Amino acid sequence: MSSRARVVTIGGGTGSFVVLTGLKQHPLELTAVVTMADDGGSTGVLRDELGVLPPGDVRQCLVALSESDQLMRELMNYRFPTGTLEGHSFGNLLLSALEKVTGSFEEAVEKASEILRIQGTVIPATLDKVQLVAHLADNQEVVGQSTIHKTSLLELQKIELRPHATANPKAIRAIEQADLIVIGPGDFYSSLIPSLLVDGIPEALVQTKAKIAYVANLMAKTGHTEQFGVADFVTVIERYIGKSVNYVLFNTYQPTEQLLNKYARDGETMINPTTKTTDSRFVGADLVSRTFPKTRPGDPIERTFIRHDPTALATSILQLLG
Amino acid sequence: MSSRARVVTIGGGTGSFVVLTGLKQHPLELTAVVTMADDGGSTGVLRDELGVLPPGDVRQCLVALSESDQLMRELMNYRFPTGTLEGHSFGNLLLSALEKVTGSFEEAVEKASEILRIQGTVIPATLDKVQLVAHLADNQEVVGQSTIHKTSLLELQKIELRPHATANPKAIRAIEQADLIVIGPGDFYSSLIPSLLVDGIPEALVQTKAKIAYVANLMAKTGHTEQFGVADFVTVIERYIGKSVNYVLFNTYQPTEQLLNKYARDGETMINPTTKTTDSRFVGADLVSRTFPKTRPGDPIERTFIRHDPTALATSILQLLG
Repeated sequence: MSSRARVVTIGGGTGSFVVLTGLKQHPLELTAVVTMADDGGSTGVLRDELGVLPPGDVRQCLVALSESDQLMRELMNYRFPTGTLEGHSFGNLLLSALEKVTGSFEEAVEKASEILRIQGTVIPATLDKVQLVAHLADNQEVVGQSTIHKTSLLELQKIELRPHATANPKAIRAIEQADLIVIGPGDFYSSLIPSLLVDGIPEALVQTKAKIAYVANLMAKTGHTEQFGVADFVTVIERYIGKSVNYVLFNTYQPTEQLLNKYARDGETMINPTTKTTDSRFVGADLVSRTFPKTRPGDPIERTFIRHDPTALATSILQLLG
Repeated sequence: MSSRARVVTIGGGTGSFVVLTGLKQHPLELTAVVTMADDGGSTGVLRDELGVLPPGDVRQCLVALSESDQLMRELMNYRFPTGTLEGHSFGNLLLSALEKVTGSFEEAVEKASEILRIQGTVIPATLDKVQLVAHLADNQEVVGQSTIHKTSLLELQKIELRPHATANPKAIRAIEQADLIVIGPGDFYSSLIPSLLVDGIPEALVQTKAKIAYVANLMAKTGHTEQFGVADFVTVIERYIGKSVNYVLFNTYQPTEQLLNKYARDGETMINPTTKTTDSRFVGADLVSRTFPKTRPGDPIERTFIRHDPTALATSILQLLG
């Protein structure tokens, strides 16, 4: 390639952290479009008390792309252990304080990008203040991403953002100008779908000439994506985008039952890695990290035990660029 | 001068902020030795809840010496306005989080110095966890700098740090190697005396070949330095050091009664600026800022209305270097 390939990730949380950590090792022009529907934990408290936009997902992307030393990255993920600050991650406080001082979440992200010397660009999918709302059978309504995360969606009728959110023009531009767009991995209804619910994002995905790759999750979540095979995720994702994806990256490695019992989180089951398919878009590879639980407090991936290996994932993604 | 003159300030709070802001404009090798007895407000909560050393005075010195842009300096002084974070300054949270991540307040100050690109060095007077204790008549004991600040010390018998504090070796070295040491301005019993109570600091001041200048306050504080003239401050300071100072900088400008009524804080009266003295060490100059209250929230000098002018103060100090 004469110039660097433009790769855009869409998602949030640990999934975006892992995929960006891997892609950062390669000479790419990276842009992370970040979901903005989180309302739990430290992020939820900051939204409620300060009226700021949710900093948590953006923080994880910034840390992944940071060229700063290990100390700065640890600082960003440091969580205050006790007292009235308990549970707040320092990076969330940085983004919220910057938003208050500048009056703009966008400027806050830019300044934090400078402080953390990031390689690439982090773009909030929307700058509107929204909540995720799930409509279930019998007119039941579940409000808020963190509540939805804990609720069974087996009777999901519709999921939406309230109020309607308009895409950040910079997110649209990044999608339009990309060579490759990587959706996922990530918690399906917390990290992936909320970005696709932003007005303008699916439209840009339909318009763009970029190839679109969907990275299938390793684990299915009870009550959310229960019993899903890789193809089921793809079907739902394509319904939200309104277009077929060009590639589906899925894992072929099967950890032992013993490791699964030890490391799988409650409410999660491993997606059958031996899924057979005649669909030529499906690309299988061993994508599972063999590095098991880190114990450093505040590490953003500490709770995700069966997870993608950043290097293996990036290698597979790069092959899609040709 | 062939090499830069080494100037060391001793104090904390707004006083150190003002003197460092002025001195930073000149080609000096600046070191701020910072008092470590604060236990009020945001600093007090962080000490209680996280067991950290007091960040507030260090923060103000870092901001004064920062070469970062205005936004970074505003960020450091930003105070969260509402909720469980109410009253915390962001800079205090940065120093406390860095102390927790590194396990060392000294490393925290070094890393914050790097983040804020400071010109000069900020050194905590001691790294021991101490409280200021005032002994009054009738065996009455007042514990804690913030409580002492609000208590009348007219019957003060003795003031001390509990437990005894040992000087930071770097503070001693800076004092020993200085060309000029500037004590003050600053709240007398909150910012100046606590540094002089640290074992090793007065001894270093006695040993050093540096000239010592005392910058007299503009205001006397009811119940603390009530009725003090400039010479009274000097007498007390010299008693704590155990040595005469070489210079006393005092203000000669008399604001109008109208301005004094408007801007003097409760419990403060202006020290008579026309103090006459035959003592050749006394150097008078117009040191009063004509810039009146700033209203930007979080500004460290917002509450100090009759205050030193950083530029005038620095000019007078530089003349002492010859």
